[in-house]
Amino acid sequence: MMTRRNFARLATAAAAVGTLPRVVRAQIAAPTRKVRYAPVGLGLISVDHFMPGTRQGQYGEITGLVSGTPEKVTKLAAEYKVPDGNCYTYQTFDTIKNNPNIDAVYIGLPNNMHAEYTIRAAQAGKHVLCEKPMAMNLRECEQMIAACKKANVKLMIAYRCHLQSSHIEARNLIRSGAMGKVEAIEGAAGFNIAHGVWRTKRQYAGGGPLMDIGIYALNAARFVLGEEPEDIKAFSSVVDKGDDRFQDIEENVAWSMRFPSGAVSSMTTTYGANQEGFLRVHCSGGVVEINGFGYNGISLNVQKRGRGVYEDTKQADNGQGVYQFVIESDYFSQAVLNNTPIEPSGEEGLKDMQAIAKIYESAGRKG
Amino acid sequence: MMTRRNFARLATAAAAVGTLPRVVRAQIAAPTRKVRYAPVGLGLISVDHFMPGTRQGQYGEITGLVSGTPEKVTKLAAEYKVPDGNCYTYQTFDTIKNNPNIDAVYIGLPNNMHAEYTIRAAQAGKHVLCEKPMAMNLRECEQMIAACKKANVKLMIAYRCHLQSSHIEARNLIRSGAMGKVEAIEGAAGFNIAHGVWRTKRQYAGGGPLMDIGIYALNAARFVLGEEPEDIKAFSSVVDKGDDRFQDIEENVAWSMRFPSGAVSSMTTTYGANQEGFLRVHCSGGVVEINGFGYNGISLNVQKRGRGVYEDTKQADNGQGVYQFVIESDYFSQAVLNNTPIEPSGEEGLKDMQAIAKIYESAGRKG
Repeated sequence: MMTRRNFARLATAAAAVGTLPRVVRAQIAAPTRKVRYAPVGLGLISVDHFMPGTRQGQYGEITGLVSGTPEKVTKLAAEYKVPDGNCYTYQTFDTIKNNPNIDAVYIGLPNNMHAEYTIRAAQAGKHVLCEKPMAMNLRECEQMIAACKKANVKLMIAYRCHLQSSHIEARNLIRSGAMGKVEAIEGAAGFNIAHGVWRTKRQYAGGGPLMDIGIYALNAARFVLGEEPEDIKAFSSVVDKGDDRFQDIEENVAWSMRFPSGAVSSMTTTYGANQEGFLRVHCSGGVVEINGFGYNGISLNVQKRGRGVYEDTKQADNGQGVYQFVIESDYFSQAVLNNTPIEPSGEEGLKDMQAIAKIYESAGRKG
Repeated sequence: MMTRRNFARLATAAAAVGTLPRVVRAQIAAPTRKVRYAPVGLGLISVDHFMPGTRQGQYGEITGLVSGTPEKVTKLAAEYKVPDGNCYTYQTFDTIKNNPNIDAVYIGLPNNMHAEYTIRAAQAGKHVLCEKPMAMNLRECEQMIAACKKANVKLMIAYRCHLQSSHIEARNLIRSGAMGKVEAIEGAAGFNIAHGVWRTKRQYAGGGPLMDIGIYALNAARFVLGEEPEDIKAFSSVVDKGDDRFQDIEENVAWSMRFPSGAVSSMTTTYGANQEGFLRVHCSGGVVEINGFGYNGISLNVQKRGRGVYEDTKQADNGQGVYQFVIESDYFSQAVLNNTPIEPSGEEGLKDMQAIAKIYESAGRKG
């Protein structure tokens, strides 16, 4: 068994070569200014995750609300002490540009609204933190990037896993060469989706499980390798053609990728079964495995081959013990406050969408 | 947690619908006659596995030897009390037809010799248990099947996993519908191969890790599903083009498959890293996972979804506690003695080779 100290040493050595985003947890005085957010869309991910995460963090606060549901606005305005004048509907949204008390928006909308509200927010001069998948297609991604660039506002795609120690340590170990050459990567992520939800309608979701959940495994592979797939081949399928969930979207996708280094990868995703998400990176010198992509903890397992045996450590972590949405919100806030580059950028979101487009193309999806 | 009793009930219910090969362990008197084997090729798998497995079993015995290495023959003839007249070289092999004290051969040779010695054995009137992969290509497989059929001898491909409770219980659970619909399957198997061994030479091996070790994951998927892939797409790669192991063969393969039911699968194999072999079958009603394809134990993990939670059991087994090569040898012996059908038949070996041929074709391998 590898001791914690040996593992820490390995990780530290690896980190020395990395150029990774780091969330610096302030150990000192509270910041003099916070980034003031209006979440756009008050669904579960906003209300249960981003908003409490921001409140618990040190660099952001909720000062506005955007929703089409007055009841939600009334309740959350009271909870977060948001004045009436900072509450917007989708119709009044563009007037947010006249509000000096809102710096940024968090887009927690169905996928088909990501591009529109990112672009409208940019045109209103607000920074944008947008959920994944970035948008419905490549054209929308490019329009979002261009709009934010033109308006000189920050754009981040909410890849919270990029800010988790599981992913960062995996990336450092792999990119440093500490694990040898990367040979083969397996990954999966999926769940048994409910009936009647917007994610099963292509007009809202843009696609099926690949867009929504398979993207975690795809993104993790790209993230830890630091390479883009040079070629992708894929299948999609529907098991039960009468299932109302799969009239518009695929039920399953399987895809294989080859990277320029010679590493290969095979992955699956499904909306028909609960898959524990994972990424397993087989290297000539050992195995790096990420288990789970969920909000409540991602574990990292490293088996480094040495002297003929495997050394083993298991590390269950949840982003340095801090809730993932606190880290995400604070990371974006600090980038806005300090005008520093954002690693999970619009370009990063676009790269996933480029891979997804290739997967759908190979699988024969029309349109 | 699912209790052992509940799991047993589930497995029993599932088995009721199955039509699987069963190894009947004799609880009664020893058989009046044993199948008399000559292993062809005295490499590790013959000497360390098949021969001791046969000796430990109840339905077979080693009465002959075929080898090009006199020292091995001398040593093993003494150990197994094989008379000189039952020892053959590759040159004298065909005269085995005149030997009434040898019923069957076990082919533990490099892949390029499987077809030749299977056909020569059949022509000598001997039953054939041949190691996997069945042969170098589809044409050879077809010739082997035809030769055994013409000679009216049994042909089994040594898929020992088919006779293990891990695989049989997984297959029963999945095919019975007890786990719901099969959605997505992941699998892998590979190892970091030594330098200078015949398995890295295409003229002996026919291919790389896919032929040798990836076949375990591929075969397990076909076995538990009871379906043949309707389409396959794949990549192969070499990471280090200067590595002497990969001048002739691929280092890595990633492939995806779609089955007629709509189940999809993604797999990898490598000769560049130690992959723990596995097959994970995600069903609408839970997960069935086989871990390890090795000689010393394969584990089965079933997570069945019920009443909103997962029920869980882990079962580490090694074929009813009996060494896998004992089961394999006794299974073939019983089929010979009783003239019963063999499940891992030549046709089964051919089907794997058909899938492998599609994988290599999609990956762009020439020849």
